[in-house]
Amino acid sequence: MPETIRAAILSLGTEITNGIINDTHGRFLSAELSAMGIRVERICQMRDDPENIPVVRELVGNHELVIITGGLGPTSDDMTREAIAEAAGVPLRFDEELWGLLTGRYRLSVAEANRKQAFVPEGFHVVPNPLGSAPGLWGHIEGCLLCALPGPPRELEPMFVQSIREVIAEQLHLSIPEEIEASSFLIPEAMLEDACQRSADGVVSWRTRFQPYRISLYIGGGEREQQESFLRSLQEHFGYGLIQPGNIEPARIVFEALREKGWRLTTAESCTGGLIGSLLTEIPGVSSYFWGGFVTYDNQAKERELGVKRTTLEHYGAVSEETALEMAVGALQRSETDIAVAVTGVAGPEGGTAEKPVGIVWIAVACSDGQKMAWRFDFGNRRNAVRRRTAVAALLLVDLMAREPNRLDMVKHWHYS
Amino acid sequence: MPETIRAAILSLGTEITNGIINDTHGRFLSAELSAMGIRVERICQMRDDPENIPVVRELVGNHELVIITGGLGPTSDDMTREAIAEAAGVPLRFDEELWGLLTGRYRLSVAEANRKQAFVPEGFHVVPNPLGSAPGLWGHIEGCLLCALPGPPRELEPMFVQSIREVIAEQLHLSIPEEIEASSFLIPEAMLEDACQRSADGVVSWRTRFQPYRISLYIGGGEREQQESFLRSLQEHFGYGLIQPGNIEPARIVFEALREKGWRLTTAESCTGGLIGSLLTEIPGVSSYFWGGFVTYDNQAKERELGVKRTTLEHYGAVSEETALEMAVGALQRSETDIAVAVTGVAGPEGGTAEKPVGIVWIAVACSDGQKMAWRFDFGNRRNAVRRRTAVAALLLVDLMAREPNRLDMVKHWHYS
Repeated sequence: MPETIRAAILSLGTEITNGIINDTHGRFLSAELSAMGIRVERICQMRDDPENIPVVRELVGNHELVIITGGLGPTSDDMTREAIAEAAGVPLRFDEELWGLLTGRYRLSVAEANRKQAFVPEGFHVVPNPLGSAPGLWGHIEGCLLCALPGPPRELEPMFVQSIREVIAEQLHLSIPEEIEASSFLIPEAMLEDACQRSADGVVSWRTRFQPYRISLYIGGGEREQQESFLRSLQEHFGYGLIQPGNIEPARIVFEALREKGWRLTTAESCTGGLIGSLLTEIPGVSSYFWGGFVTYDNQAKERELGVKRTTLEHYGAVSEETALEMAVGALQRSETDIAVAVTGVAGPEGGTAEKPVGIVWIAVACSDGQKMAWRFDFGNRRNAVRRRTAVAALLLVDLMAREPNRLDMVKHWHYS
Repeated sequence: MPETIRAAILSLGTEITNGIINDTHGRFLSAELSAMGIRVERICQMRDDPENIPVVRELVGNHELVIITGGLGPTSDDMTREAIAEAAGVPLRFDEELWGLLTGRYRLSVAEANRKQAFVPEGFHVVPNPLGSAPGLWGHIEGCLLCALPGPPRELEPMFVQSIREVIAEQLHLSIPEEIEASSFLIPEAMLEDACQRSADGVVSWRTRFQPYRISLYIGGGEREQQESFLRSLQEHFGYGLIQPGNIEPARIVFEALREKGWRLTTAESCTGGLIGSLLTEIPGVSSYFWGGFVTYDNQAKERELGVKRTTLEHYGAVSEETALEMAVGALQRSETDIAVAVTGVAGPEGGTAEKPVGIVWIAVACSDGQKMAWRFDFGNRRNAVRRRTAVAALLLVDLMAREPNRLDMVKHWHYS
């Protein structure tokens, strides 16, 4: 066994090579394998075609682990079983037990064509698939562990996590990584990477995953205590709020905060145009905590819907502390809820001035106990990034105001650029 | 030259094989090449690593076209130039003209490390890159055309469309496909595929691409007239509105319609929680046509913000024709704009009843000339799909009401499930 375990991932599917669908297995599997310390050398997508049988042989010859996805279906161009048998130099055997499982599951609807799916390369093991008709397979070809997984992501991902990952760990003498998950908000990628590198102690490892409203952070290596200390050092560096434990959407954080306090929220949105309300209402059951909102894109809408004074708009402008505060207070009074958040900013590309360039956003929060505060942010110069960051900041501010108002002075250190 | 041109795509990047980022070039390039009639045999992602030089040699030996992406940067592990030179058996030559272009563009900021980027394998052609420092390269190695493109998608995609596609067509004696683009809304994938198959005449071909709020449809093959007739037959089959020419977001369609009419729009959203306003305000310049909206998630918000009568809510329920119409009329009166759209539905997973199961949505439109109408839809049982489909339908209804009110009776044939 070499020190570094080298792996190749091969996804079969003509829909992929025709550009009709995107391969998603490569990324999923390479992230999982990398977390186990395996070096992924090559990810390939090929047609589901008998011509490709020699490729399997070549991959097996050059790697300690090969994962094949797809090509395990019942039709004649599903060639994975044949390719494995050929590469291993063994025959395919009809597996009565597997056939019994398939016929038992699908009863009379198992077509004769599905018989193909009960053939197994001699010496290979079967992994049952509760979510489809294609079972998984694994076995050794000389010094290589070969695993075959069904193509549909909703079958592949659970089979990998529930069975194949353990097979790989056991057969290749590796341990399954114990990771803790965290979420980072409003932190540019390079800055997060930099802070991770500075917090690293040579034992803890990390990987990140971009999501539209956060970066998910997976912390592995070392003991749980070391991982937690790594996370704490990031939290201390960026300040409470921007790094939170758990892989969690900002809208979910607010939902939990509102539920904890028994509060109801109202939104007043200008530059985000309804995005904050839209994110909140993605969460089932939010209706007990989200009253509704006001989308006041036009200045007239700010006056009519929220009672923002015309003199405020004229004197300070729509993007100002004063307007943001009047929007929040107006939303709170009209709804008679517990907390309101208001956003107003210059999303661009037009509308920026020297004093208020594109990216300047004011966010205000008002509470039924009379507290109100507003903050100014600079969220960069790309319209949809400004809108997304504004929504995230507004949600995080509601959470802070509800659960940790004594930490609100940290917000002045939040910045994006 | 064989009848079928076989192609391989190789993307280099350690961030891909570590699972940190997803490869997107494979799909983009394979769709483009497939549309030109080229058969993509293999898509590969590998580390950016000198070990991989032999793979380039192997791909060149087995394909008529090889496209390499990435590995053209200035750092020492950017190996694409070396790999090409090695596969071609030619030296790398310093290209004074290219160096002049780079230093001219970046002036004094071109580091000595960038000199590497001015080396070109002998006999290869340079494709200038106005968006970055890595130029494209192309040339022949025996019977294979090899093209190298920069890794960042925002540099690769324009370079392919503006230059490399023509190089491939010219060098391999192919024609660049003339496709027409269309968009389909609220049509399930299988149903669209089925209709395409029934409309096909053996000459026209099509491919689709999923987007969050539409399916983009690319119609190729045959003459322009045949492609247009194929599109018309789909429009006749599904009805006006659900198949539209052009690759276009529903919010953009509404923006164009409002601009054409000089109208201003107001939204009143319950189950979508602000999604419709959020989609509209993604479009720069929409502020002249979008006044704002009311997010009336709670029944009290429907009463207070829009003046929906409590008796209406009690008698007909929040999800009803009567409530939807009162919401639209209330939004119109409060904003004094030209048109208002209101949505109210059961997004689920809770809240469904036998009479109004999850997925039932009422959408109403009211105009300043006194016209008002409402429609009932069934958008399935997945919360976020119900919300997305509701937003799309609401936008399409505004467009119809503004531009083609005489076609509104077709809406009764719209259905999702």
